Amino acid sequence: MLSKAKITFIISLQKKKTREEERLYVIEGDKLVREFLEAGVKVRMLIAKPEFLNSLHQVLKQGIPEIIPASFEDLKRISTLKTPHNALAVIEMPESKPDPSSLKNGLTVALDTVQDPGNLGTIIRAAAWFGIKNIYCSPDCVDVYNPKVIQASMGAILHVSVFYTDLRSFLETALNNKIKIFGALMDGESIYSYKLENKGIILLGNESKGISEELMPYVTDRIMIPKISDAQSGIDSLNVSMAASVIFSEFTRSRGRGM
Amino acid sequence: MLSKAKITFIISLQKKKTREEERLYVIEGDKLVREFLEAGVKVRMLIAKPEFLNSLHQVLKQGIPEIIPASFEDLKRISTLKTPHNALAVIEMPESKPDPSSLKNGLTVALDTVQDPGNLGTIIRAAAWFGIKNIYCSPDCVDVYNPKVIQASMGAILHVSVFYTDLRSFLETALNNKIKIFGALMDGESIYSYKLENKGIILLGNESKGISEELMPYVTDRIMIPKISDAQSGIDSLNVSMAASVIFSEFTRSRGRGM
Repeated sequence: MLSKAKITFIISLQKKKTREEERLYVIEGDKLVREFLEAGVKVRMLIAKPEFLNSLHQVLKQGIPEIIPASFEDLKRISTLKTPHNALAVIEMPESKPDPSSLKNGLTVALDTVQDPGNLGTIIRAAAWFGIKNIYCSPDCVDVYNPKVIQASMGAILHVSVFYTDLRSFLETALNNKIKIFGALMDGESIYSYKLENKGIILLGNESKGISEELMPYVTDRIMIPKISDAQSGIDSLNVSMAASVIFSEFTRSRGRGM
Repeated sequence: MLSKAKITFIISLQKKKTREEERLYVIEGDKLVREFLEAGVKVRMLIAKPEFLNSLHQVLKQGIPEIIPASFEDLKRISTLKTPHNALAVIEMPESKPDPSSLKNGLTVALDTVQDPGNLGTIIRAAAWFGIKNIYCSPDCVDVYNPKVIQASMGAILHVSVFYTDLRSFLETALNNKIKIFGALMDGESIYSYKLENKGIILLGNESKGISEELMPYVTDRIMIPKISDAQSGIDSLNVSMAASVIFSEFTRSRGRGM
């Protein structure tokens, strides 16, 4: 039985403030919950239909402090979705710390004020696909544990670490260590002809404002995705998550990977 | 004043059936409405705050049968958004017919059962960016005039024609005309090394099921976006709209455009 106190507690985790105080977040969905269990992530609470719980291998359930069978109605009460899935889990936030040495070993992403949850989730998914393991977000980016980000990332947050940090000092340190900073800009050089490297930081800006003024001085390499001009298209930009996918892909290709 | 009958009528256009009977659809948003007016699209009705109406050049208002000043409350009543924009317009569907000869002159997109409105809108936006002018959808794709598709496409539907047709006979005709059909498949050849052409059809499948069995025989060229294997990422696919962006970009690059 799902007590009233538990229902209140789980719903309270929809707020960023509570998530940060408790160091817990919620994931929803049969496939996602199964993936998290199989990845050996620390699960504080598993709430699911009895059928789902029965379908899980015993090993996956070991070490979960609370496993609570729930009805559709119970799940509906705690879900952020119109139609709840069969399973929901409360997860402990990882203690991962930024590892500056990783900057020298490959591509890293920095996001400046990306505020749409769907965009952040999609960027995490694209990063996982293209083998990028670390994303640094400015503090005013949407929270990675926002339910909509988790939903859009489709389990990719298991494979990508997301950190929140002051991008100014982060980029300054990178620059001092001779790390290139590739900024996605409307007036940059075409990614198709520009010499992309197999290490560095890809900096992407806000959905409508782009990269903020104060970060511009740190951009060492200005890149852009060319618009095909005969399209006569009035659209002024690709969505940031589409741009991210295209840029990650082009870095991958130009490094001779994925052939 | 916005009459009760008009409110009911505009809300009724949220249904696909009514849209098709009336050959009308609704767009929302100051920027979007302005773009449609500037593009010279046939507007049946313009409903907006007086400030917005006053800000419009007289020329843009000519030929609109009904221009109705509205309050925030009125706009809230007819909007599909939680917070309405300052302007909404009822637009006449274009009479555009598929032009099979266009298949020989460049890239065309075919979508098999793409059902998420955000995905279709994003694919239209990516197509506009990369100069692709025609998208053919299977009849069970989401309706292009669905408010969420319009919202995600960000005005790109002004530059891309979207047709609904039986893809089987469409692809058969294309094949008979020696048009290549590039199918995005999990086990295709890497787009980075495969010889992409400057004409042909890019066929993308459903969000979870991919390209349907019955269309597989028409695929002449099997392509895929390689996953970087050391990512150890359990994610099984890129979202279809991200995949579309990456594939359109790679076709663009390999044709030596956008340099």
